[in-house]
Amino acid sequence: MGGLRVHGSPFSTATMRVLAVFHEKELEYDFVQVDMKSGEHKTDKFLALNPFGQVPAFEDGDIKMFESRAITQYLAHTYADRGTQLLFKEPKKMADQSVWVEVEAHHFDKVASKLAWELCLKPMFGMKTDEATAEELKGELGKVLDVYEARLSRTTFISGDAFGLADVHHAPVVHYLMSSPAKEVFVARPHVGKWAEYILSRPAWARVVALQNKE
Amino acid sequence: MGGLRVHGSPFSTATMRVLAVFHEKELEYDFVQVDMKSGEHKTDKFLALNPFGQVPAFEDGDIKMFESRAITQYLAHTYADRGTQLLFKEPKKMADQSVWVEVEAHHFDKVASKLAWELCLKPMFGMKTDEATAEELKGELGKVLDVYEARLSRTTFISGDAFGLADVHHAPVVHYLMSSPAKEVFVARPHVGKWAEYILSRPAWARVVALQNKE
Ligand SMILES: N[C@@H](CCC(=O)N[C@@H](CS)C(=O)NCC(=O)O)C(=O)O
Ligand SMILES: N[C@@H](CCC(=O)N[C@@H](CS)C(=O)NCC(=O)O)C(=O)O
Repeated sequence: MGGLRVHGSPFSTATMRVLAVFHEKELEYDFVQVDMKSGEHKTDKFLALNPFGQVPAFEDGDIKMFESRAITQYLAHTYADRGTQLLFKEPKKMADQSVWVEVEAHHFDKVASKLAWELCLKPMFGMKTDEATAEELKGELGKVLDVYEARLSRTTFISGDAFGLADVHHAPVVHYLMSSPAKEVFVARPHVGKWAEYILSRPAWARVVALQNKE
Repeated sequence: MGGLRVHGSPFSTATMRVLAVFHEKELEYDFVQVDMKSGEHKTDKFLALNPFGQVPAFEDGDIKMFESRAITQYLAHTYADRGTQLLFKEPKKMADQSVWVEVEAHHFDKVASKLAWELCLKPMFGMKTDEATAEELKGELGKVLDVYEARLSRTTFISGDAFGLADVHHAPVVHYLMSSPAKEVFVARPHVGKWAEYILSRPAWARVVALQNKE
């Protein structure tokens, strides 16, 4: 299983999304730390891995990729037989999974990752949260999570009755927000709160978080 | 082939993305016009199709979907044997396609659809373009298209040597911008300019645009 390599930072949500899939699939991989503080992700060497200068980047032999959600799809397909099955085969279930993978990217992440930046990452980098922006984003996140609450009152997981890729994609941003004042936006919606707790309770996820503590 | 139905507006870029795939795949479908001016997309009836109240929504028998890029993936997989082959089978090509499908969503569309709103859609709805915002977005789009120019100087299409799903996904926003002052941002980059012209010259695309003239 040699040759899988990910370049990134254990604090970056996009990197963590990929790491979560590595651990769910029980894949061995090399983790190459990118020193973002010194701007390593903007050097020519890194730009050859991702021309947009963002982490993560990924290599599997001569296959080179970037964009976290492209990498996770690749891992889930290519290593379908390993670890947790994250994809569904039945057409209707596959269709639901595709829809909710897009919802994570276009509705949830769009708002939630900005909020995680304000509430969690900014303080981590010694910057000050803009409280007004945070409040506004909390309101927007609430509207998205209202749709999630209705969905999760009918299905156990976001794309259906089994845990899958769409759930995993949420883990990094849910992780940050559930340990911030925005936790209330999740737990005020009982099905969402339960789902969020479950995602974070996965053993594979604990292994991703442990990489932060190694720092 | 009965039973494929799309709900949307022929002027909405997300709807047009799905229509482009219908026509590339030479699939018959019912097109249900959603009257966005009267807010039909926010009625309970439409919210049952897409809880986020946006077009398009899609039905294939008991499979119900929303999110344009989930629908296109579903059509490209399910109807793989029909019309233009939009997916690649070889793992490295598949990986490249996944990456550039994500790039369209997270880098191109993020900037370009805001610019299309300012320059094309706002005037269409009798609103005034905010020139300062448009200039700023043009600058941001230029940076994204610099990466595209480098890419397209090595490959004929955005995800490789064959036309594919990642190219089709760009068509709606490229269509609007290429008939706006932002055309210069494309044609100033020769490979990008040629690629953009090619995408818009597809017979399937002409059929999508023709639906606007039926209005
Ligand atoms: N859509 C990309 C987003 C990647 C991204 O935004 N990475 C952040 C860290 S989470 C980054 O590298 N930021 C530095 C920068 O944009 O300059 C993905 O999912 O991989
Ligand atoms: N990510 C969605 C975006 C859909 C979208 O933004 N649709 C627009 C028209 S292009 C819409 O319905 N806007 C009305 C609204 O958001 O209220 C997709 O790709 O389907």
